[in-house]
Amino acid sequence: MNQIKHRETTKKIKVGSLEIGGGAPISVQSMTKTDTANIDATVKQINDLAKAGCHIIRCAIPNKEAALAIKEIKKQINIPLVADIHFNHEYAVLAAESGADKLRINPGNIGEADKIRAVVEAAKTRGIPIRVGVNSGSLETKIRKKYMGHITADGLVQSALNNVKILEDFGFNDIVISIKATSVPLLIKAHQLIAKKTHYPLHVGLTESGIPKIGTIRSSAGIGAILAQGIGDTIRVSLTGDPLEEVRVGYEILKALQLTFHGVTVIACPTCGRTDIDVVSIATEIEEQTRHIKQPLTVAIMGCEVNGPGEAADADVGLAGGMGVGLIFREGQVVRKVPEAEMVEALLDEIESMAIK
Amino acid sequence: MNQIKHRETTKKIKVGSLEIGGGAPISVQSMTKTDTANIDATVKQINDLAKAGCHIIRCAIPNKEAALAIKEIKKQINIPLVADIHFNHEYAVLAAESGADKLRINPGNIGEADKIRAVVEAAKTRGIPIRVGVNSGSLETKIRKKYMGHITADGLVQSALNNVKILEDFGFNDIVISIKATSVPLLIKAHQLIAKKTHYPLHVGLTESGIPKIGTIRSSAGIGAILAQGIGDTIRVSLTGDPLEEVRVGYEILKALQLTFHGVTVIACPTCGRTDIDVVSIATEIEEQTRHIKQPLTVAIMGCEVNGPGEAADADVGLAGGMGVGLIFREGQVVRKVPEAEMVEALLDEIESMAIK
Repeated sequence: MNQIKHRETTKKIKVGSLEIGGGAPISVQSMTKTDTANIDATVKQINDLAKAGCHIIRCAIPNKEAALAIKEIKKQINIPLVADIHFNHEYAVLAAESGADKLRINPGNIGEADKIRAVVEAAKTRGIPIRVGVNSGSLETKIRKKYMGHITADGLVQSALNNVKILEDFGFNDIVISIKATSVPLLIKAHQLIAKKTHYPLHVGLTESGIPKIGTIRSSAGIGAILAQGIGDTIRVSLTGDPLEEVRVGYEILKALQLTFHGVTVIACPTCGRTDIDVVSIATEIEEQTRHIKQPLTVAIMGCEVNGPGEAADADVGLAGGMGVGLIFREGQVVRKVPEAEMVEALLDEIESMAIK
Repeated sequence: MNQIKHRETTKKIKVGSLEIGGGAPISVQSMTKTDTANIDATVKQINDLAKAGCHIIRCAIPNKEAALAIKEIKKQINIPLVADIHFNHEYAVLAAESGADKLRINPGNIGEADKIRAVVEAAKTRGIPIRVGVNSGSLETKIRKKYMGHITADGLVQSALNNVKILEDFGFNDIVISIKATSVPLLIKAHQLIAKKTHYPLHVGLTESGIPKIGTIRSSAGIGAILAQGIGDTIRVSLTGDPLEEVRVGYEILKALQLTFHGVTVIACPTCGRTDIDVVSIATEIEEQTRHIKQPLTVAIMGCEVNGPGEAADADVGLAGGMGVGLIFREGQVVRKVPEAEMVEALLDEIESMAIK
């Protein structure tokens, strides 16, 4: 039953001081939405993201100014920076020289061998990895044609592995692979397929997932399904909007799958005709007032006598309320009985004291 | 590669006129949060949920009044109603007699054989199924003890199957099974396990998933991972708060996994340093203004020239914008070129005309 997970078999790659693959903790990535050449704005956004827990940041490098800006940006941030380059090998070389911790470029898009060699040499000299991959929106015409114009999992995997092969042929194997798609089933299938064919670590993300309300659901289902199958070494939730939201959702996916342990998880009953305490406002208040706690704790807010006591006792701290009175549980034992007005305070007391412990 | 999905092998069960299992479309369930005995409030909530697409509604039946209220409620609603009963066999019999389309009760909790027989007879007489199952919060002490007090996937499956066995011993096999847990990995594991052991349809849901912001992510990851493995015949997203949100999230999970096709799906690029049109506001406006469309259509809003044209061309309607100008795609072909101020209108024109088609 306990199969070896793909992520435990992948090659360990270093991005700055961070490890990706080989069973390393799954890292959460995001991408700046600023003009990279605007150093102040970019640094501010990166530091905000880092504070929210972002492990690796990627910046678009669409021109020389952006490539050069990396040097100054790197001085003012504390997480590894990935330079995202399309087509232009000179920007890639410049980004590496400016101190990028990883390049994201497809050698298949660069052109002549000399240009590819220049990028590989720059990466080797600096000891930085290259992420190659494919996006369903930019799959090569040649591969599309092979599948009658359709974007298939086979086609995506082939495209990604073609890029890997080019780097390997240049003697380079400090590689992370990504396959991005807008279709969740296609994304899942492509990951199942590539996991059988490679031991390079995989960067998992649904691309163009949409505005946060919908993109959160699509990303959680897609990335969640892949991670649950033991596949995926680093993730990026890509949302249209504030990148802080990407980091927050990424963490929640990892927390849900118990692939990271970080902060308070509030579980709460959905409330039903049996409920007679205000579960929604209690749960919301507890969630808001415990965000500063880094220690992993589970708090259960339950509104009835059916599943209430069981769930409350299983959590680190729990409340089983009913008829205006609540039993407060701590590590499975009832420690207090309080009226509804004191429930939030009593829960916070117990949570805070456990967090300090 | 194309394995037979568990949901294609399950027994087909009828709940009112709706089918669950045997490859039937995956249905979206919710549960009322009103006092069931309050007929007006309950009917209003059910009809609001039905309008949002809810296929099956469950009501808590904690007393005789609630059981009797079903009769009047049923007259005023158009979706099947499930009576949710704990322990009390009389409420179950009464609910069946009042016209409930399905009972949710565990025979293992009822007690003496005569009482169980009474419930089974009531269900048989009315031709209605029974959902049995287990919730990690109320797993029997006997099974907990067997696993040293731990709640395990094996234990959950055993508990569910024990309840199935009791009904089968009474000659009843019009059964739906549910396993609910607060832990996503436990939920996934239990479903993988029970899928190997039963052909009764499975009702999938994460229990006590939390306030909507977090519960949405946890449910999408958990239910999504299970559905993606071909398991699950009907789902309920359980959120602390408005049940309409449960239905909305349930649909989005099914849409993400392409297990239902319903309405407009807006995909949008996450925006980056390359973006120079306002993708966020365009995508949000398109999402809001196309909610009335039932026909499945994909709309891509892309802000740059890298992945933009590819994604935009793959969608039913697409926008690839940059430098203040946007190309509007329809079924893969560029149909118009418009300035930024006209992008939303041009997209809506194309979407509306495709929706009518």
